Order: sequence, then C-alpha cells, then structure tokens
Amino acid sequence: MLKALLGLLALASVQQQAVVSPEVHPDRTVTFRCEAPNAQDVSVSIEGGKAALKMTKGAGGVWSVTTGSLEPDIYGYSFNIDGKATLDSHNPAIKPNLIWVGNMVTVPGKQVWEPRNVSKGTVHHHFFQSKAIGAERDFFVYTPPGFSKAKKLPVMYLLHGFSDMASGWTEVGKAHVILDNLLAEGKIKPMVVVMPLGYGVPDFASPNGRNFGDRQRTLNNFTRFETSLLTEVRPMVESNYGTATTADKRAICGLSMGGAESLFIGLKHTDTFHYIGGFSSGGFPANKPEEVFPHLTKAQLARLKYLWMTCGTDDGLIGFQRGFSGWLKDKGAKVETQETGGGHVWMLWRRALSAFSQKLFK
Amino acid sequence: MLKALLGLLALASVQQQAVVSPEVHPDRTVTFRCEAPNAQDVSVSIEGGKAALKMTKGAGGVWSVTTGSLEPDIYGYSFNIDGKATLDSHNPAIKPNLIWVGNMVTVPGKQVWEPRNVSKGTVHHHFFQSKAIGAERDFFVYTPPGFSKAKKLPVMYLLHGFSDMASGWTEVGKAHVILDNLLAEGKIKPMVVVMPLGYGVPDFASPNGRNFGDRQRTLNNFTRFETSLLTEVRPMVESNYGTATTADKRAICGLSMGGAESLFIGLKHTDTFHYIGGFSSGGFPANKPEEVFPHLTKAQLARLKYLWMTCGTDDGLIGFQRGFSGWLKDKGAKVETQETGGGHVWMLWRRALSAFSQKLFK
Repeated sequence: MLKALLGLLALASVQQQAVVSPEVHPDRTVTFRCEAPNAQDVSVSIEGGKAALKMTKGAGGVWSVTTGSLEPDIYGYSFNIDGKATLDSHNPAIKPNLIWVGNMVTVPGKQVWEPRNVSKGTVHHHFFQSKAIGAERDFFVYTPPGFSKAKKLPVMYLLHGFSDMASGWTEVGKAHVILDNLLAEGKIKPMVVVMPLGYGVPDFASPNGRNFGDRQRTLNNFTRFETSLLTEVRPMVESNYGTATTADKRAICGLSMGGAESLFIGLKHTDTFHYIGGFSSGGFPANKPEEVFPHLTKAQLARLKYLWMTCGTDDGLIGFQRGFSGWLKDKGAKVETQETGGGHVWMLWRRALSAFSQKLFK
Repeated sequence: MLKALLGLLALASVQQQAVVSPEVHPDRTVTFRCEAPNAQDVSVSIEGGKAALKMTKGAGGVWSVTTGSLEPDIYGYSFNIDGKATLDSHNPAIKPNLIWVGNMVTVPGKQVWEPRNVSKGTVHHHFFQSKAIGAERDFFVYTPPGFSKAKKLPVMYLLHGFSDMASGWTEVGKAHVILDNLLAEGKIKPMVVVMPLGYGVPDFASPNGRNFGDRQRTLNNFTRFETSLLTEVRPMVESNYGTATTADKRAICGLSMGGAESLFIGLKHTDTFHYIGGFSSGGFPANKPEEVFPHLTKAQLARLKYLWMTCGTDDGLIGFQRGFSGWLKDKGAKVETQETGGGHVWMLWRRALSAFSQKLFK
C-alpha cells in the first residue's frame, strides 16, 4: 500500500525541472522564458510596449529576455514564435478573452490594483436566459465588504471591451481589488458594481466574425444589449441586491466598445443614469452622433451629474473622443475630457475606473 | 470624424484570416490546428487519450489532425511542439491551473455538464485573509436557483485537486451547471456548495515546489487547510448563507488531493460531516491510515450516512482506494466503492459529483 499511498509523489520530481516564466526580479526587471527548440525567431510583445522584445536562444531550446526596470503595473503579454502569437504555458495568470487570449504579469509596487490586507468584497456570477438576445448570458456583481440589501446602495454598470468575456473587468481589470482598496481608504462611496457580458449579438466577438465591419450587425449588438441591460439585468440586480432605483444613484461606464455602449445607452437614458464614463471609447454603430441621438436635448443632457471621457493620445480612438465630446459640447453638454499618454491598454482602464469611481454618488 | 468613428473596423479584416482550433464537427470528430512553421514534431495530448495524436504540417506552417468520433464529453488538451507543452492560443476555453494550464473542448451531446435552458444558480467568489494559513485565500459558493437564507439549506464542501485553483470545480468541473441540471430534473435536493482554495501551505502547488515529496510539508498542507475550513470558511458560509448546522446536513467530497483531504477531514470529524466522498483520492500525508486516524472508532464511523470512494482502474491511485477502503472496512465502516474505467481525468470527476450529489440529504 505504501507505493499506492505515495502515488502522487512522482509529481514532485517532474516539477523540479520546470522552466519559470515570467520571473519578476526585485529591481522590477522581468525575465520571460519560452521553450521553442526549433524556432528561428522568438519575441515577447508586452502590453504598452512600443515593439516586441527579441528573445535569445539558450540551453535546452529555451529562449529568454530580461526587460529593463518596469513601472509597477500589470502587463499583458504574449510570445511570438516565428510570427505566430503563442501563450506562455508556464504562467497560470491568463487574460481571458474570446479572441486574443494572453498572459499577465504583475510588477508589484503597492498599486491600487494589488490586493491589500483590507476587508474584501464578494464577486457574484449570475447566469440567465436572455429573451432580448436569444441566448444564455452572464453577469458579475461586486458587493462591497459589509454589504446588506437594506442599505439600498448606488450601482455602477461597468462594461468590458470588444473580445472580452464578462470576467474581463475582474480577471484583468481587477475591479474588485481596486474598489476594495479605494473603499478602505475612504475614497469612494460603497457601491454595487454590475459587469455584464456586453454583446447583444451572441457571437459578435468570434475569431472569424464580421463584427464591426457590418453596420447593421453592430447596431443590433448595441441595441439588443441595451434592451437586455435595462429590462433584464437591471431588474434582477435591483431585486437581488436592493440597489437604489433613482438615476442619481446609477452610473454607467466602460472601456473601448463598452465605453461606446456606455455613451450610447447612457445618453439615450439620462432619466436612468446620471453618471456616464467612456474609457478609450470606440466602435460606435453610426458615422454621425445625430444618427444615434436624433432627439437628444440640452435639457436631457443637463440632468447628468458627471460625464467623462478619457483616452490615450497614442490610441487610434483619440479622434473619436475629440469628435464626440466636441459634438456633445455643441449640444450644450457639460463634458469633462482627459487625454493621457499611452495607447489602448488595460493600464489606462484600471486607472480610469479608479478615477471615475471617486467622482460618483457624492 | 468618420475615420475616427470607424477606428475599430480594422479589427474585422484582421480576423478573417484566423486559424480555427479546435473545430468540432457534427459527427463528433474534432480538428485541432497549431501554428508552428519551423517545428519538427507537433502532436496533441487529449485528456483520457492513450497517446498523443501526431499532427501533420500543412500550408502556412499550420499543423493539424482530426480525431475519430469522440464520446460527448469535455476534453482537456494541450499541444506538444518539439516535446514542449504549449497552449492552443486560438481557443478561449482555458483550464485554469497553477502548474499545468491547458485548454478544453466540448463535444456536445446533451450531457449533464452542458448548460440547459433551466433555472440557474449563482456562483459567489469570496476573499479573506486566513489567520490559519497566513495568506489571502478565496472560496466559491454555489447557491441554487430560488436560494433564500431562510431555507437553511444543506451544504456540500467540494474540494479540488493538486495544482487546481479554487475555480477548478466551476471552470473545469462545471459543478454549477451539473447541479442546476440535476435540480431541474428533481434528482438532487437543493444545496449550497462551497469550493475553497484547498492548500494549507500557501505555495504548495507551484511549478518548482517540493510538494508531496516533503512529508511534513504535506501534513501541514492538510492540517492548516482543515483548520481554515472548519474555523474560518465554515462560519462565514453559515453566517452568509444560513446553511444548516447539523452533521446530517453537511457533506465533504473532492477529487485527487481534495479526495484525500475529504477523507482526512471528514473521518476526523464525523460529528461535523455525515457524508464523505473521495474521487480518485491520493496524496495522503502518511504511509499508514492509523498514523492519521489513531483514535478512529467504530462508533464514530457508524455516524456516517454515506461514505463513498470512486476511482478509475487505469489510475495509479486505484491502489490507495483499495487499500484505504479495506482498512476502513476492517475498522467496521460501511464504505461503498466504485471502480470505473479510465484514468486520473475530469471526465470521471464530473460524473462522480453527479452520482455523489444524488445520494445526499435524503
């Protein structure tokens, strides 16, 4: 029986040889390692990096490279082996995505997205059959520490980007960690945060989908999601979590496609949402804003307590922000815009969530 | 502004060229595709398969193979490129794991782990600082559709295996789907299911850890987890979810290391758990059961309502099941054992959860 009892011991010896990747050093440099014995060319593409870093082949067919000292942040990355994007199979930190799955590495530095020894909220994963969309949908709900339905907390709807899963804002965006930490610092009001799967067309984000190339399909994607959010998700949230039911206690914001959806839904329903945020917004289902908002009035815009758009100046979508915020101002809206450095990256969106959430419900 | 508004359209054209992998055909064959232009040898290892399937190089450096017709199931898999395990970067279905990250593909066939149009439960993700373990821990809680704290539901503690994350039983095991479906069929009692991170030693499962090779470390892993489960997780669950607090309303079960933990904790606390299940159990922190259970009496064993062990006959751990169940019978326990075909695979564990849950709380 000894042999049988020790059955799993064999695992231990196998593991002794394992390649470690990524390896984060105390000086905030990071070594990436990739096993590819017959590859001709291996590099690592790091989120926010200007160009892929060439890797050098070493013993055992293990390619490696060490970065310079990096700013504390969470970096998405993937390997490129002879021109083909490949995951780091040694790193359990995966960026879930419907099209571009990647890895993540955290360079620590006491940032707001790093877990601290504070009271923690809970993340609830809901599933339902959507009549509006004709498919099973899911959404996540963050409740802060000490949550009670009786408190009638305000609620933020937080929308992911194109190709993300519903888990994007928690798994990659660390929304629950950011909110726990801001709450512990007294920088935000306690709030419930709803993170729904953001596609009104079931297979809108698929590797071979037509997606944004088909205008009607894009419009369906936005409008069916709008219907599902307002008539299916919202009542479930208000019933299950007892959240406040007035517009001054509701915010909607999101990144990229989710930023465009936030503007699309929020500005059509200023009687429902008094806070709207668009982070690196893009993918709007119209050439001109007036096609989407033919009836938007100055009075409707005046209801808003805070309307914010932020985008990186290296992001191709900066033009949308400038154009759209300009159009809104012409309509009489009070809109605040921010232009940061950087591109279309999660580093910007974690900071955007942190900044926007501090403006709400005060 | 038109150009800016259309910024994301560029994505659509990029996607047209994407390699699709895996591709499940109507006859239940599956085509796997792997881009590796300079590789010499590429194969795919499929969970439960006897040997890796050789892949053939085609146009554009894309290797592929099509399986024979497969039984409806969820198959874990990974590619081997020149002897190195590699993920399928085209497949968003990832098997989360602390050491061996892999992919999954579902061959559909109306099985109990496939989502159906039934009422859905909710999966809650909790985080806390464990004093017993000295690190942040997490656990998932499944509540059935129509859950109310007032119902004082029975509770199952469901433990993952070595190298799994706390999300193993939901992401890979589809526990929430299985329980939703069984409940809709009237085959199980409504119950709350608790799925904790199962390591009492914080970095017990790491690529270069000593793990089971170190007996004291393994014992610490089991006993600190036991303390955390009983004195930290259990009170939180009972307080947050109002679950029943009598032993006849509590079950503990798990797979592999989690099966051994279920036996370890359950048999030491027959005043707390009246249902115990071990699925492919292994990794026990002792050579002989009496070292772990020096005081276990026939009277204590007689409290149990159901004690079940199941294991595949191709699994190296079948010897543990035979030896341990024999020892229990010698001690006077009423233990039911099952030997199925197959090895150390999730196919067995999903079925084990389905079978075991139908025996509970009746």
